[in-house]
Amino acid sequence: MPQFAARMQGAQRSFIREILKVTADPSVISFAGGLPNPASFPVAEIAAAAQAVLAESGASALQYSPTEGYKPLREWIARRYRQKKGMDVDPADILITTGSQQALDLAAKVLVDEGDPVVLEKPGYLGAIQAFSLYRPGWRSVPLREDGPDLEALDEALAGAKLFYAVTSFQNPSGLTYSAARRTAVAELLRRHGCFFLEDDPYGELRFSGADLPPVYAQRPENSLLLGTFSKIAAPGFRLGWIVAQGEIMERLVIAKQAADLHTGSLDQMLVHRFLRDNDFEAHVARIRTLYGAQCRAMQASIARHFPKDVAVTRPEGGMFLWATLPGGLSSLELLKLAVAHKVAFVPGAAFFVDGSGENTLRLNYSNADAATIDEGIRRLARCLEACLAGRDAVETLLERGCQA
Amino acid sequence: MPQFAARMQGAQRSFIREILKVTADPSVISFAGGLPNPASFPVAEIAAAAQAVLAESGASALQYSPTEGYKPLREWIARRYRQKKGMDVDPADILITTGSQQALDLAAKVLVDEGDPVVLEKPGYLGAIQAFSLYRPGWRSVPLREDGPDLEALDEALAGAKLFYAVTSFQNPSGLTYSAARRTAVAELLRRHGCFFLEDDPYGELRFSGADLPPVYAQRPENSLLLGTFSKIAAPGFRLGWIVAQGEIMERLVIAKQAADLHTGSLDQMLVHRFLRDNDFEAHVARIRTLYGAQCRAMQASIARHFPKDVAVTRPEGGMFLWATLPGGLSSLELLKLAVAHKVAFVPGAAFFVDGSGENTLRLNYSNADAATIDEGIRRLARCLEACLAGRDAVETLLERGCQA
Repeated sequence: MPQFAARMQGAQRSFIREILKVTADPSVISFAGGLPNPASFPVAEIAAAAQAVLAESGASALQYSPTEGYKPLREWIARRYRQKKGMDVDPADILITTGSQQALDLAAKVLVDEGDPVVLEKPGYLGAIQAFSLYRPGWRSVPLREDGPDLEALDEALAGAKLFYAVTSFQNPSGLTYSAARRTAVAELLRRHGCFFLEDDPYGELRFSGADLPPVYAQRPENSLLLGTFSKIAAPGFRLGWIVAQGEIMERLVIAKQAADLHTGSLDQMLVHRFLRDNDFEAHVARIRTLYGAQCRAMQASIARHFPKDVAVTRPEGGMFLWATLPGGLSSLELLKLAVAHKVAFVPGAAFFVDGSGENTLRLNYSNADAATIDEGIRRLARCLEACLAGRDAVETLLERGCQA
Repeated sequence: MPQFAARMQGAQRSFIREILKVTADPSVISFAGGLPNPASFPVAEIAAAAQAVLAESGASALQYSPTEGYKPLREWIARRYRQKKGMDVDPADILITTGSQQALDLAAKVLVDEGDPVVLEKPGYLGAIQAFSLYRPGWRSVPLREDGPDLEALDEALAGAKLFYAVTSFQNPSGLTYSAARRTAVAELLRRHGCFFLEDDPYGELRFSGADLPPVYAQRPENSLLLGTFSKIAAPGFRLGWIVAQGEIMERLVIAKQAADLHTGSLDQMLVHRFLRDNDFEAHVARIRTLYGAQCRAMQASIARHFPKDVAVTRPEGGMFLWATLPGGLSSLELLKLAVAHKVAFVPGAAFFVDGSGENTLRLNYSNADAATIDEGIRRLARCLEACLAGRDAVETLLERGCQA
């Protein structure tokens, strides 16, 4: 058999997607996914939009369309940045992508040569690790603190780096958010080191506590790309994301996009635009924020009630994830085996680290379960945690009981 | 400014998409595009499918979905290969892609290292040249004859090659089709040289004369990938294509797909599946075949009537394109300038060659204009051709007249 490309050596399917297959069993309470709550999907509004778009513009909704994206949708996005963030974004600076996963792939394709130093948060977003890894960068990772990256470590990592990738609000996996001061400091460091900056903001609209902050991009558009998505504020099934970038960067992204899939679905773009135009989008997003805020608080309350005290958990102000750190020496992968036997699942944290660390961390998703289910799941998980803390005998006893259940 | 990735050096926007912008003027008759005729789009059927899918499965139509694609759609595709081509295709061998352009990108990503020899037809499909070029292969091209590639040249080119890329039926840009004998010979050469084979079949359903032939893939599934698309038999706005491949190749394609955009639009896949399920697809495709066959014959008749006799034109049995070769020394790029001034457009052939040749060739699309428009466009083009053949003075006279028009 002929050889595959070298970039495929060691490339693996997403660990998370593999876990999700295990959790297809409906008796398993899963905190493993990263799925928006389908209760928030505007199904009837999309059905109405579909009728209107197909009746009024059927031929163009089904035809090829420009690589850059559907113009009214690009205008809507630019206008929203102006109105909500006070940012000066031109519709020409918006490229519609096939979800923001594609934006990651395009950015890596346009910016990264093999061996280029790429700086990532620690923990960092798995989808970005996957997309970038196929371009074989040299990874550097910078610890995330409560209010953003460790600045000293970032300063060191940025020296000679090609690019810094960051999820600045309600990060996946940690739930952490860069403070205003940290945003300014990061922009300053980026300016000093002169590298590219890729800011990923899929959850920015999902703030349920604290004050809204503009992206770092607002302070440093040169050499920067800002990613957004409709996956969390409309629905992910459309695969609709976007990149904000200017000038030469945008020119090259368009070339790469054309080679990657010509353009993003015409009907999808027109449907979502019609949905945004014909409905009260602010009220829609407010409902999602309220829902996720309540579910986050429910999970925090259950954790406070059930978890052993030496498990540290982040306090997100938005988004979809909590991040837990176990006492040193405990393995979340071992915990997962026990947990799955007890019908509860999460994502072990190691997948979010490029330096082999993170064994004692885990990600919990709260967007896709109601409060009662969350409490039951956290209770089950707490029993597994206690057994892990108590040592091997307790684990084996619990494993046996789980297998009988 | 930091440096872009080396792969972007020399990468350009599609020449065709740039021509299409010039031809946005509705007074220009354009044979430049590669657009399916919107009269063939099943708009009402898609609207009905949208209502049914959203009413019955709204939450899953708008949610994330498996990387491999929507299972009932993969089953439909596999079944059709069995029924129409007698091919043994398992649904597990089908990966749904975001148009077949994405399939080209994924194939290149999985198979091609920088400098790998990649063999292409001459002329070859521009979208593949674009997708592959970003992976920086060493191109080799093999002349296409009436019934397929020159076998001696192919044998030579395949020595030590990584991959052969071919559009075996009603090729874009030439309209040419591999004969049954040539298919067998190509499969034999591939087996002998042991390289990967990427067979692109976007137009296979659009045969309006001659006998149907199974893809070369049917004779040689090992180390091979077969591409298909709904763009020409349903509508391109969905961005729905697929790859047929097996075993390790499929495993790696799924990994690359996950990194590229997670999965193709859930709603799009369910809509198209519902359309296929609830309607008479055979009748639908038969209508497209009849339409394009009539338009192809109209263009051939107009060419016979108006074109100078020393312009050679291919005789397609299906698909969307005719290919013309001008007498040596004439430049189709020069002809295009004159043509645009006379409100008719086509694609100069040089873009379809990776070796700098093809200056005297051009592609004519017949799928997207009615017979009267085709005749008027061919008449205009014939006048420009005559002026080119008559020499510089005639061209300048005609250019002046065009600019006054």
